[in-house]
Amino acid sequence: MTRLFGLLLLVEGIGLLLSTLIALISRGDDAMALSVSSILCIVPGFLAFSLTAGYKSHLPRREGFFAVVVGWIIISVMGSIPFVLSGYIPRLTDAFFETMSGFTTTGASIVENIDSFPRGLLFWRSMTHWLGGMGIIVLALSFLPGVGIGGMHLFDAESPGISIDKVSPRIYQTARRIWGVYLFFTLLEMVMLMAGGMSWFDSICHSFSTMATGGFSTKQESIAAYHSPYIEYIITLFMIIAGSNFALLFFTIIGKPSMLFKDEEFRDYLLIILGFTVLIATGLYISTDLGLEKSFRDSLFTVVSVITTTGFVTADYLTWLPVLTMLIFALFFFGASTGSTGGGIKIMRIVLLLKNSYYELRRMIHPKAVIPVRFNKHSVDTKVVNNILAFFMFYVSIFFISSIIMMIFVPDMATSMGAVASCMGNIGPGLGSVGPVFVYAHIPDFGKWFLSFLMMLGRLELLTVLILFTPSFWEK
Amino acid sequence: MTRLFGLLLLVEGIGLLLSTLIALISRGDDAMALSVSSILCIVPGFLAFSLTAGYKSHLPRREGFFAVVVGWIIISVMGSIPFVLSGYIPRLTDAFFETMSGFTTTGASIVENIDSFPRGLLFWRSMTHWLGGMGIIVLALSFLPGVGIGGMHLFDAESPGISIDKVSPRIYQTARRIWGVYLFFTLLEMVMLMAGGMSWFDSICHSFSTMATGGFSTKQESIAAYHSPYIEYIITLFMIIAGSNFALLFFTIIGKPSMLFKDEEFRDYLLIILGFTVLIATGLYISTDLGLEKSFRDSLFTVVSVITTTGFVTADYLTWLPVLTMLIFALFFFGASTGSTGGGIKIMRIVLLLKNSYYELRRMIHPKAVIPVRFNKHSVDTKVVNNILAFFMFYVSIFFISSIIMMIFVPDMATSMGAVASCMGNIGPGLGSVGPVFVYAHIPDFGKWFLSFLMMLGRLELLTVLILFTPSFWEK
Repeated sequence: MTRLFGLLLLVEGIGLLLSTLIALISRGDDAMALSVSSILCIVPGFLAFSLTAGYKSHLPRREGFFAVVVGWIIISVMGSIPFVLSGYIPRLTDAFFETMSGFTTTGASIVENIDSFPRGLLFWRSMTHWLGGMGIIVLALSFLPGVGIGGMHLFDAESPGISIDKVSPRIYQTARRIWGVYLFFTLLEMVMLMAGGMSWFDSICHSFSTMATGGFSTKQESIAAYHSPYIEYIITLFMIIAGSNFALLFFTIIGKPSMLFKDEEFRDYLLIILGFTVLIATGLYISTDLGLEKSFRDSLFTVVSVITTTGFVTADYLTWLPVLTMLIFALFFFGASTGSTGGGIKIMRIVLLLKNSYYELRRMIHPKAVIPVRFNKHSVDTKVVNNILAFFMFYVSIFFISSIIMMIFVPDMATSMGAVASCMGNIGPGLGSVGPVFVYAHIPDFGKWFLSFLMMLGRLELLTVLILFTPSFWEK
Repeated sequence: MTRLFGLLLLVEGIGLLLSTLIALISRGDDAMALSVSSILCIVPGFLAFSLTAGYKSHLPRREGFFAVVVGWIIISVMGSIPFVLSGYIPRLTDAFFETMSGFTTTGASIVENIDSFPRGLLFWRSMTHWLGGMGIIVLALSFLPGVGIGGMHLFDAESPGISIDKVSPRIYQTARRIWGVYLFFTLLEMVMLMAGGMSWFDSICHSFSTMATGGFSTKQESIAAYHSPYIEYIITLFMIIAGSNFALLFFTIIGKPSMLFKDEEFRDYLLIILGFTVLIATGLYISTDLGLEKSFRDSLFTVVSVITTTGFVTADYLTWLPVLTMLIFALFFFGASTGSTGGGIKIMRIVLLLKNSYYELRRMIHPKAVIPVRFNKHSVDTKVVNNILAFFMFYVSIFFISSIIMMIFVPDMATSMGAVASCMGNIGPGLGSVGPVFVYAHIPDFGKWFLSFLMMLGRLELLTVLILFTPSFWEK
């Protein structure tokens, strides 16, 4: 476990080192803060990693759950140091919120003047997204599969029928491929954004944010600041990619796109995007004078931004007709595909639960027939359905209970529910006073810590964190 | 099926006949409308019933689902006739809403001047509650058990291990007993309310409403009109009783109260009431100058009124601290016990789903162990868990989709969500402009028909109605 933490700190330290470089090149006043933070990560990280060389790298099941949660907290604390040291986000509560929001790819921010931040810090802020987004996929591959369906499905796409537990060497191969896909699309997006007139620096930062489904921007106004339909469409496209299953994206790159387009989850994902976009675009076109193209573009961008849990903003959906805002809020509970960098409940879970419910009606009509749920033409084991059910129940209950707790501190129903749904789903903007054109700065301290916790809870798919709170976990 | 409809109309006609009697005694201007309506029910009802004498009374499975839904619609249409004919609720949309609200024991009203209604109509209005409340229990016993866990559990309390399908004669015996319990508590409440100074007429009407967990009152201000702590406590007590499993109540009456108090669902039900009451009373005491007793009484009454899905009002929870209002809104999704006259999701379903989710964490720690969910010391079959899961998913999805649809007509999130949750749960008051001190009069016509449908959907536990919308239902 120490070895794992060491590795995490090393990776974080290298990210900070790169940020320091950016700071030095652009002669920012953040170079000192970033370099000190980098050393604070690299030195203990290197020591922990090298002193434990030769230790078994395989973690037992329980220690694994524990390590993931603690590791996530450690990197968030360390990652907030440059913000505090540089004085740009002086308070630890705020800096921790911002960093947790980064690593969890939430993108909720407390910064009200991001345009005045130096480049080193902006780069680091987007870098937290990028590391976190990749991290969660590697995690899904190497560890979480035993837990739920996320990684399992990711792996099954390549070799159906082989249990992930037995094929350790293959995990690394798959991880490398996924890494390649991630890097490939990040670079591709960067180039395409630069082609649209975005500066190289903004292009890197936004590509990091997009591919991680994060949402941090270098502009206070987010993507709306560019007033460029081209940039909006490009980012929409890459958000859709980032919200897809990366294993299937790999096969698309190597020339087998049919696997992606035959995938039930991917098709449902596109259908949901299409359905909501048409509904909302129609509503916007009728109720405003935006015109057809702008209504369509704003709807598509917002729907994709929310369902992929990215959180970029080109339009303030709170100013739309209430029913359109409500449609967007409903999307807060969908989430992207399994095996993507996106958060939320995820399309496959939603579809499986709805299918199972619909099949139950058929079971009532034919009580003696055995009618299993099918997904991607395979029947789904009841154990998997049960795991998804547990996940969903926890999601709904935690959403309700957390909204109530938030209302003690923020006595407004829309803001509380919006903030909780947004942070749990790793989206970013919420409702009320944490809407798309606002930030989380005014939330009281307790609320910020609480929301930070919810971000982590959502990012680690609830169960991994919740399991630490059960008595049986701590039994010998 | 014709025979069943005939029987329903006969029962309804007798109820209307009784109301006509009340109207004649109190010399109201509603006697003519009520007597005509009574004849309109009794004549076709008698014909349908007598002409089909000798027909087999057992309905096949599919016809059963169909008959329940159509029967419910027929009695609601017929029951709204006296309101229209008398001119007190001249529009059919409104009268149908009010009657459906009565039979489903919802208690949502469109009437803004109920104090000026004649006694015959008031009696009929409360009578719809009482008939609907009893009806749903008989239904649960004789038919719905095959569907879910409601009636099954009710019956199992008496004779565990015997399938309800095989014991037709016993159903009638059980139904008679349940009828006795219902009548017993209705009379007891009536006497105790009269002892508190309520008129005999108001006592009957409120006893009908309470035992059916309905919520219609003879006063526009509801129970708040009496300014009597005694009456409030008595009604609280009988609401708690009405929200309990009637089979267990039977055993309590014949001297075996231990069965009730050992029942897991009943204990959870009391614990939830206690927990929410303490939380809300504390909040009220701190934030207002109501004093300890009044804070406690208002909290207890409101919590019980909402969780039992009755909907009587002594305090306007919308004027409380937002977090307290939110706690009440959370209760909208709990509901009463299975085998009670209450609606909503029901305690047993909630507890089973939460238990199952918690057990899933234990299953993750011990992946090879088989850990079934236990309820009342018996392990619960996965089929039952799956049926409950389907119910819950439908409940949540329909709530969300319906809220969005309502927002097209009522562009206010709180009102739409409150109205939908309240009508689906058969509660009565909602949030926003359909709060405890308001009525549903201002909702546009489409919204009223839609909410009427939701009341029926909720009352028949969703699946019975939804099943009619599946293609397989209509296949040969």
